[in-house]
Amino acid sequence: MAATTSWVPADAKGDFSIHNLPFGIFSTSSGAPRAGVRIGDSIVDLKALSSDPAAAGLKSIHGAAASFAQPTLNAFAESGRATHKGVRAELQAILGGSDSLLQSNDALKQKVLVPVSQAKMHLPMQIGDYTDFYAGYNHAFKVGVLFRGPDNALQPNYTHIPVGYHGRSSSIVVSGTPIQRPRGQILPNPAAAEKIPVTAACKRFDYELELAAFICKPTQMGDSVDVNEADEYIFGYVLLNDWSARDIQAWEYIPLGPFNGKNFGSTISPWIVTGDALEPFRTEPLENKTAIQPYLQQSQKKSVYDIKLQTTINTNGKTDGSIISETSAKNLLWSFPQMVAHHTYGGCNLRAGDMLGSGTISGTELRERGSLLEMTEGGKQDFEIGQGKVRRFLEDGDSVVMYGYCEKEGIRVGFGDCEGTILPAKAL
Amino acid sequence: MAATTSWVPADAKGDFSIHNLPFGIFSTSSGAPRAGVRIGDSIVDLKALSSDPAAAGLKSIHGAAASFAQPTLNAFAESGRATHKGVRAELQAILGGSDSLLQSNDALKQKVLVPVSQAKMHLPMQIGDYTDFYAGYNHAFKVGVLFRGPDNALQPNYTHIPVGYHGRSSSIVVSGTPIQRPRGQILPNPAAAEKIPVTAACKRFDYELELAAFICKPTQMGDSVDVNEADEYIFGYVLLNDWSARDIQAWEYIPLGPFNGKNFGSTISPWIVTGDALEPFRTEPLENKTAIQPYLQQSQKKSVYDIKLQTTINTNGKTDGSIISETSAKNLLWSFPQMVAHHTYGGCNLRAGDMLGSGTISGTELRERGSLLEMTEGGKQDFEIGQGKVRRFLEDGDSVVMYGYCEKEGIRVGFGDCEGTILPAKAL
Repeated sequence: MAATTSWVPADAKGDFSIHNLPFGIFSTSSGAPRAGVRIGDSIVDLKALSSDPAAAGLKSIHGAAASFAQPTLNAFAESGRATHKGVRAELQAILGGSDSLLQSNDALKQKVLVPVSQAKMHLPMQIGDYTDFYAGYNHAFKVGVLFRGPDNALQPNYTHIPVGYHGRSSSIVVSGTPIQRPRGQILPNPAAAEKIPVTAACKRFDYELELAAFICKPTQMGDSVDVNEADEYIFGYVLLNDWSARDIQAWEYIPLGPFNGKNFGSTISPWIVTGDALEPFRTEPLENKTAIQPYLQQSQKKSVYDIKLQTTINTNGKTDGSIISETSAKNLLWSFPQMVAHHTYGGCNLRAGDMLGSGTISGTELRERGSLLEMTEGGKQDFEIGQGKVRRFLEDGDSVVMYGYCEKEGIRVGFGDCEGTILPAKAL
Repeated sequence: MAATTSWVPADAKGDFSIHNLPFGIFSTSSGAPRAGVRIGDSIVDLKALSSDPAAAGLKSIHGAAASFAQPTLNAFAESGRATHKGVRAELQAILGGSDSLLQSNDALKQKVLVPVSQAKMHLPMQIGDYTDFYAGYNHAFKVGVLFRGPDNALQPNYTHIPVGYHGRSSSIVVSGTPIQRPRGQILPNPAAAEKIPVTAACKRFDYELELAAFICKPTQMGDSVDVNEADEYIFGYVLLNDWSARDIQAWEYIPLGPFNGKNFGSTISPWIVTGDALEPFRTEPLENKTAIQPYLQQSQKKSVYDIKLQTTINTNGKTDGSIISETSAKNLLWSFPQMVAHHTYGGCNLRAGDMLGSGTISGTELRERGSLLEMTEGGKQDFEIGQGKVRRFLEDGDSVVMYGYCEKEGIRVGFGDCEGTILPAKAL
């Protein structure tokens, strides 16, 4: 792996170097939502490029022209990882070093390179089903300790099964979309013998830092995906903030799992970073000492990515927040290929555009935690978020920003921002 | 309400009398999937009818022509209940009594009336999110007793919240689609202190008898639906078999709810019966003695429908099964409007095509139960299914057929079959 540069201004230390080239959906004042690839502060308009006669020699890009004109990346995703690789290689060739096709063709450049400041980002995929796993061991353990003490922190199934549940896909929004504080049923005094709820705005509003994968290769009902082939079913990755109303969730979740405590909104970053871009950053996940079932045994031991994950909370419309926590996406007990293998083992089918969340990712130290719940000991302690401010849970006007990037040998591949600002709850 | 008849042969005592007129999606050897309405053993081809110049005077039908040409009913559903009512009224006019428009126009009749024997039924809607509630009190109580005894059968939240969880939409299939027995992780000895699972085919394969509603009117994120307006958001109803792998579910479901124990497949009946057709059969739900929160208080006391629900198990490709259980859809603690109000109360948005399941519907007696789990005391007793055969759980080749219908004053409105036959599990 050698660092290369692009003639398009793109900081090698920025998220969107030529080694990244993530896919997204953008629109401009003059054009409807369509496919693009990010490089530096520009977007390569894939619809414009792929349909231009000058690009006829770029076989993969030209061949994908119909999918690039769509308002979602589902069709392109479904074209398969070999196609994604081909498109990425052609883009690296015309964007890297000197190239006559695009660099020296001012008219084409004008048409194809869009400044990000002129673009509005959209959800990159039409999401069919959203599944959220619980593979962040340190988070699951910490939350378990808070609720049940260290001896019963995790269920016996936790190290055998990539535990997951079905989430709500209708309320997944792209970074920058405001999130309204939910209201719902809350138990004002959970310790009381008599359980009488009230209806109120959520008082324990939290974020959850996650990584999410998009499926590209569909399966048929009844079929299963081999864990060692599962990477071929993953189009790429985004950051995910799985907003959580801890008080609503606590009252509702037994026995069927989280519902209104989660389904009011989830935020994802707009650019889908491919497994190809993340390949140099493979590493080993957390050790699982349990003898796992054969269908989950993965031969690739470096099954996760060492993506640095950071969270900031800005307040009052300012960008004054400091990094309040920093961890790595390697803090997972289960890899995404294991999640895919488990999800399909019983015959459940996947569709291109389905999204799989990792579950909250945390390290073991205080400032490595992926949610406020963990950093405030369940809302019992203040946590410093910078500028002398503290939080136990999120307040109206708070803007939670998540970042993710990999760095190695002078090469950086990143996700950009995953941001959401909290609006006050609807009146009762 | 007076019984009327149609000139199209349609048994007044059959499910598809002129008082019903449910919507579905069908295809024929000569035509792609399109919208139709069932009457007797015929389907009114709504695409053909709405686009024929002879139907220009049928304002509602003609106005919906574009939506009737779609391969799903989503666009028609979204056109709103006033449009559905208008279309239904025009159909009752041209199908009932004597009418010159269709009855006397042989060419048009030939084009518009399709024998069901020549049609293949498809999923009626593109389902965005599938939510399954747990509103069948008798089922929830019985299952709770089996697992935790009568004193702790239900959680304290059960009578305050229409408890529900997010299900899997990709694997919802139309009646007649075979269902493969799932395989998965199972605890061979649940009582043992050490919890060591094996991988195996499901041994406790069950059905669940439910009613499901389809959403027609979308909401925006952050908005909520008033419980007294919620009926306007429901397009209509189908029967739902929420197949369940009890052994897989038991090992996986704590703490986040059912996953592979449910997501391998769910079967629905093909014809969407509208609330307008069910209106004469309104009745009161089970009494809830709890003081419920204001947002769940519904002024319409007859908030559910008295739909007779029956289940049969046929074996070995025969149709030799007898009715093994019979109950009513009034056995719910929560109405669908209450489910809609609760689902959106925190701001979760609904889309046209979303599906809401009731949860398993059971009466209190042995032969009124909506699942084998309940009728075999958790798989401990044989249950007679007719022809001298017994089951504890389902066997390969078993075909589970559910029926649902309302009957009153000589008028019947029914759902047709909801059928699925079990295929052997995939080899390990």
